[in-house]
Amino acid sequence: MRQTASFPAVIAPDRASAEAAIARQATLTKPTGALGRLEELSAWVSACQGACPPKQFERVRVVVFAGDHGVARTGVSAYPPEVTAQMVANIESGGAAINVLAEIADAGVRVIDVAVDSESGPERTHKVRRSSGDITVTDALSDDEVSTALEVGRQLADEEVDAGADLLIAGDMGIGNTTAATVLVCALTNTEPVAAMGRGTGIDDATWARKTAAVRDALYRAYPSRTDPVAILRIGAGADFAAMAGFLAQAAVRRTPVLLDGLVVTAAALIADRMAPGAREWWQAGHRSTEPAHSLALAQLDLEPILDLGMRLGEGTGAAMAVPVLRAATATLASMATFDSAGVSGRAEP
Amino acid sequence: MRQTASFPAVIAPDRASAEAAIARQATLTKPTGALGRLEELSAWVSACQGACPPKQFERVRVVVFAGDHGVARTGVSAYPPEVTAQMVANIESGGAAINVLAEIADAGVRVIDVAVDSESGPERTHKVRRSSGDITVTDALSDDEVSTALEVGRQLADEEVDAGADLLIAGDMGIGNTTAATVLVCALTNTEPVAAMGRGTGIDDATWARKTAAVRDALYRAYPSRTDPVAILRIGAGADFAAMAGFLAQAAVRRTPVLLDGLVVTAAALIADRMAPGAREWWQAGHRSTEPAHSLALAQLDLEPILDLGMRLGEGTGAAMAVPVLRAATATLASMATFDSAGVSGRAEP
Repeated sequence: MRQTASFPAVIAPDRASAEAAIARQATLTKPTGALGRLEELSAWVSACQGACPPKQFERVRVVVFAGDHGVARTGVSAYPPEVTAQMVANIESGGAAINVLAEIADAGVRVIDVAVDSESGPERTHKVRRSSGDITVTDALSDDEVSTALEVGRQLADEEVDAGADLLIAGDMGIGNTTAATVLVCALTNTEPVAAMGRGTGIDDATWARKTAAVRDALYRAYPSRTDPVAILRIGAGADFAAMAGFLAQAAVRRTPVLLDGLVVTAAALIADRMAPGAREWWQAGHRSTEPAHSLALAQLDLEPILDLGMRLGEGTGAAMAVPVLRAATATLASMATFDSAGVSGRAEP
Repeated sequence: MRQTASFPAVIAPDRASAEAAIARQATLTKPTGALGRLEELSAWVSACQGACPPKQFERVRVVVFAGDHGVARTGVSAYPPEVTAQMVANIESGGAAINVLAEIADAGVRVIDVAVDSESGPERTHKVRRSSGDITVTDALSDDEVSTALEVGRQLADEEVDAGADLLIAGDMGIGNTTAATVLVCALTNTEPVAAMGRGTGIDDATWARKTAAVRDALYRAYPSRTDPVAILRIGAGADFAAMAGFLAQAAVRRTPVLLDGLVVTAAALIADRMAPGAREWWQAGHRSTEPAHSLALAQLDLEPILDLGMRLGEGTGAAMAVPVLRAATATLASMATFDSAGVSGRAEP
């Protein structure tokens, strides 16, 4: 069944609630502005919830989108392609970094096999295909596969929101996926591959050169279609990217805030914001990864990352790290005493 | 009773445990180095505990040192001096930012009246004096008061460690305390006041000029004694600073890790590291505040802050925000699966 890539119009977060948050911050027992970024984030949370003060997050969910990439067989990663399926199993059994960090963040984790190159695996309901075409020489997907994958992401966002999620995180798992992500970022930010390419999972100089050449080859094919989100997912991305893009767009449609993770998720976010204009208003950037392409994508989305911890792991880990910051922003706005209630004097009159 | 400012020798955190942590990181199911700063912090936690993997923090304690400053009566703050006592009461009743953020960090909070300019208040056991001398024209304290205050801080560290604290945070509360802190930082980093002075609680240009002049006047008196920690506390600081310095030094003596907060605490830390050389090895900088003097102090201590959220509130709030990051560093090292245990392939051989 052919799906269109159209999403309902995104309604912007509620400006009046953001203004109420800023006004309330000025009444709390601290110098105005002294909580810095927390004050801005508290206004955003208020706007997303349409309420001031906002409620604390009660159901934070991480959805990890797993997929293999044909380009991984061209030697662009420090790890062999079979690691994708192995890491999906590792996430399912609770041993991956995202499991540990989600526990610290009091978030639930779910991993979805969208395009892993294996037959087995408990989560098969959402599988679009095995791996993707090698984007240096052929399309990653067919148009129908793009539509199916977008629909997978859309359904997952609906499922999570319907089950009560009040903050969503998308994560990624897939050997070769930073190659595809860099193609998307280069195409959508008009950047040369050499300026966007980082060290991925920790590649050496020879692998870096191969990876940069792979991005250049794929970009040559993808660039002419850079204004068409569906075409660019088909030519230069993969089913995991399409599902992530559908998930991020639908989260915004459903007025649910999202913490973006690193390069892969933010590349998908660039596409999602084209498919559902204004979706970016529902997102914050959890962290800045060490990949140059990630900073390019964040700049394009006009998002300033909350954390900068030198992380480059994916899986949603950087976004999970930012959850306590968002909780702190919410809690201070909601729970601090006011100058009046605490009997604290305000600023001295000059 | 006259106390000396001498502390027992600080024993360095255990290097072998740090090396074991780095080796263990390489076995966990992620690319080596992909957790960035978390990997470094996990090695530091291991070294402090002398164990790899380290245990998760179970008793994190914030001790807020409150004191008034004579210099506040010269118009260096946006707030009147009575706010110090009012905010101590606010912290005691749970309405301040540090209360809310400590709850997010699962930390306990205690506020100590070291030198508040009031007679009342439930916590009087540790009071050294009311306020301090106006440092622009006279000493803040007597030598005996410095010694008493250092001892207060030392006892508080001992009490907390004896009660099982495994991570300590010092916080500050006191109108005028960033003026004294800037004097300490300028003296100990050989910096001109105009280069160190920020906007404190949000002061206007005229107040900034008065505050900078106050620092210059106090610095003129303090600078010749900059190599003598006790003298500089007496001339240019206050009892709250001396107590904080004693607390931070004794925490290191007791081999208990500390998250430093912003300008005021880090200024006290500069003194503490002089009194107890090597104490800085037991500290991490929780955040970078917007005060220029804070960055100068951090550079002097060779500490790179964990967070940079534009905060400038004090009370221990910036340090409290970093607790989840330290928990995440500890948990990933302790709980992630290894390549062997999860059956995940390692790096491809070239």
